Amino acid sequence: MELRILGCHSATPKPDEYPTSQALLVKNQWIVIDAGEGMQVQLRRYGIKFGRIKNIFISHLHGDHLYGLFGFLSTLRLLNRQTEMHLYAPAELEDLLNHVFRTTQVELSFPLFFRPVSGNGLKLILDNDKFSVHSFPLKHRIQTHGFLVSEKPAPRKLNMNAIKQYPEIGIWAYHNLKAGKDFVTEEGKIIPNEELTLPPPRPRKYAYCSDTAYYPDIVPYIKGADVLYHEATFSDEDKDLAEKTMHSTARQAAQIAKQAQVGKLIIGHFSSRYRDTNILLKEAREVFPQTELAYEGKQVIF
Amino acid sequence: MELRILGCHSATPKPDEYPTSQALLVKNQWIVIDAGEGMQVQLRRYGIKFGRIKNIFISHLHGDHLYGLFGFLSTLRLLNRQTEMHLYAPAELEDLLNHVFRTTQVELSFPLFFRPVSGNGLKLILDNDKFSVHSFPLKHRIQTHGFLVSEKPAPRKLNMNAIKQYPEIGIWAYHNLKAGKDFVTEEGKIIPNEELTLPPPRPRKYAYCSDTAYYPDIVPYIKGADVLYHEATFSDEDKDLAEKTMHSTARQAAQIAKQAQVGKLIIGHFSSRYRDTNILLKEAREVFPQTELAYEGKQVIF
Repeated sequence: MELRILGCHSATPKPDEYPTSQALLVKNQWIVIDAGEGMQVQLRRYGIKFGRIKNIFISHLHGDHLYGLFGFLSTLRLLNRQTEMHLYAPAELEDLLNHVFRTTQVELSFPLFFRPVSGNGLKLILDNDKFSVHSFPLKHRIQTHGFLVSEKPAPRKLNMNAIKQYPEIGIWAYHNLKAGKDFVTEEGKIIPNEELTLPPPRPRKYAYCSDTAYYPDIVPYIKGADVLYHEATFSDEDKDLAEKTMHSTARQAAQIAKQAQVGKLIIGHFSSRYRDTNILLKEAREVFPQTELAYEGKQVIF
Repeated sequence: MELRILGCHSATPKPDEYPTSQALLVKNQWIVIDAGEGMQVQLRRYGIKFGRIKNIFISHLHGDHLYGLFGFLSTLRLLNRQTEMHLYAPAELEDLLNHVFRTTQVELSFPLFFRPVSGNGLKLILDNDKFSVHSFPLKHRIQTHGFLVSEKPAPRKLNMNAIKQYPEIGIWAYHNLKAGKDFVTEEGKIIPNEELTLPPPRPRKYAYCSDTAYYPDIVPYIKGADVLYHEATFSDEDKDLAEKTMHSTARQAAQIAKQAQVGKLIIGHFSSRYRDTNILLKEAREVFPQTELAYEGKQVIF
């Protein structure tokens, strides 16, 4: 997977600071998670082709997570996109989008499938042969969901050196070998799959949690994720403010990461009060050393 | 006046290219005309304090002229603005704004007065002691208005060298002198105002025309403006496309400027098809030499 941070600041944007949006490359397909103002420009800046985006996920209906959606979808119309787009978001967004497009005279050139996100627990919302996406509830001032993106296991890799020892194994047999099946010779002899193939790369998992108060209920859902993006709007010094606004401190984000035993934590959604976000990084690393700061343009390959 | 171009490209934004928005400083107050996505970031980039903006004008309801409004107004709420804001725009925008704010849970902290813009001819839509704004219809695919911003004449300037010759003229008399009245001595002798004061700077006029097809009907409205911003989406080579989409070519913009005898023409709203907008500039200058290209950050003081 490849994660690209398009924006990771909270609601009041500044030059070079964008509200929340990110793109994730999973099995050669880009998905977009949240769509703060300016996300279409950020996609262009980092060379992410609009045509390769088929799914957009919106965590909740605060403007700093979605005001970039109108411009982006309008631009796709101007580019005469034909490919369908799937939008996963709280149900009320559908009506609003229709109103925006009606008033601003946007007639989309492509099918836009609206997929309402709601409910409790870990819910499978997208499932294809390459990856799946689950939603799960976060704890914020309004209905908010996190997302878990999980690769499907790839086929096993052919061990060509081993296969060459058996002239009777033709190309016709490769498909079954990749699928994990043993090879059976004409004489009925079984050659075990493990001898002919190598295990595929371990499927990766990415968990996204923004915006949310400290909420340990999510730990089982994101357990063992390779990368966790968790909001850290405030420092522990402003814990009261975090509680009041239902956001997390950097320390709390790290506590979630530690409990969920993730591979790496990326913190973001910084309040504009912190000129130096390194104090947030330091705070989180005291609890969970494998923490990194998000920044516009940050790329994480895992 | 001081014009600052925040964005001057047509609908598909790129890094450092913003859709239409501009700020105009008139008598120490900023007004904003059109509000394409990213305008709040551009205001910050050029140091235009949000608190000094009291009036916003939206020419028409295409997304590239207004999608930046939602984020900007939401940010004002976060900054806890108290001062009132006046928004001049086609009537349908009011409902849409309410829908956006309802869905994204924005409760404004300041009074937002919505002023519907509609109708034909030159209409006075804002009038205070410093300046006035008129709207007038343009010719586009949907209802669109241009705006004419006119300074009120400033008071006459005291000619202190001349005043000193008359010890009987006290400070108490200055207000009437600035207002253009003659001075009358106790003996009834009249000292003409022209002898005691200097003429104020000539009041300036700014005309804004975007988006519009070639439309000479507007010429009487913008006659003699010091600066005219006129869209020039296409080159004359793409005249058919201009006609079809109801935009102007650079040559047509210049023809309007020439007929209206304006002081200076700024062209903008360039289609992304022109990598080198100098061909648009060259074309316009053949008709109207005092033409300049708009670009993000361009400042025009007049």
